[in-house]
Amino acid sequence: MYQERVIRIIGIDPGLRRTGWGVVETVGNSLRFVASGTVTSEGDDDLAYRLRQLHDGLQTIMSDYRPHEAAVEQTFVNKDAVATLKLGQARGIAMLVPALAGLPVAEYAPNAVKKAVIGVGHGEKQQIHMMVKVLMPKATFNTSDAADALAIAICHAHHRQSAQARAAFAGL
Amino acid sequence: MYQERVIRIIGIDPGLRRTGWGVVETVGNSLRFVASGTVTSEGDDDLAYRLRQLHDGLQTIMSDYRPHEAAVEQTFVNKDAVATLKLGQARGIAMLVPALAGLPVAEYAPNAVKKAVIGVGHGEKQQIHMMVKVLMPKATFNTSDAADALAIAICHAHHRQSAQARAAFAGL
Repeated sequence: MYQERVIRIIGIDPGLRRTGWGVVETVGNSLRFVASGTVTSEGDDDLAYRLRQLHDGLQTIMSDYRPHEAAVEQTFVNKDAVATLKLGQARGIAMLVPALAGLPVAEYAPNAVKKAVIGVGHGEKQQIHMMVKVLMPKATFNTSDAADALAIAICHAHHRQSAQARAAFAGL
Repeated sequence: MYQERVIRIIGIDPGLRRTGWGVVETVGNSLRFVASGTVTSEGDDDLAYRLRQLHDGLQTIMSDYRPHEAAVEQTFVNKDAVATLKLGQARGIAMLVPALAGLPVAEYAPNAVKKAVIGVGHGEKQQIHMMVKVLMPKATFNTSDAADALAIAICHAHHRQSAQARAAFAGL
């Protein structure tokens, strides 16, 4: 038996310039949109200050929405070491902020996110955004990064449900 | 005219498994060793928790030694996107922690660090470690990462001195 308690999940799509975030609630099999947005850092400022902007922005979201669990996309930029290092730095902050708040932080590969939202492990950005709207009709997002972050949160909601269902089944 | 005040510098050599740190003091042209060490994160723990370990470790060093300025090495791992992403994540934390304390954070390429310490832009690790001992005979370091971090701090001390000397000269 598992209890149907409300779990609030934050999905984060990290990027140095724009980090998307999306908060959803899951109760049993149902999914509810809470909020989404984008934390930005200015390209002209020095790197340490930009990372601090991301940290401060994400920390505000954490205290505004108080999620229970976090999920971050596991992305690689194979073509370009400079871009990968930049992404890594932003991703470090995106994982650190929920960890500092004591949240478990799950990681999902892009194809896992696509599979959870579209049903298959490949697909266009537009398809993901459309399915986010189908799965949560009340969802709003002002950027592509915010929509991706919601998809990551949905992916985590699905994975934790199946894990719980398996646990409940094993405990019968 | 510029005043010869004591400036305490922390150099950081970031890495997910081992992040080296070294604190030096500079007054005018002289250089003094303060402390060095290594912050480690356990390979078995999940990534977010490891990043938190690095954050907490560096934050303790910051409050123990209260440096005025920070310098971090600018490294690339061209051969491997996975390794570059990992390094980027650790590097994000290494830059964030001093930025959160309000410190300016300078970045130096490996050849700038070598040039400041050895006198040329290339050389072996052993040569760097030997020159750290020549420049600061009282320096101790228990890991190669701690020695590299001291070299980064020395590099920043040299660069800020020449910048100040230029400013003083321009102001004559």
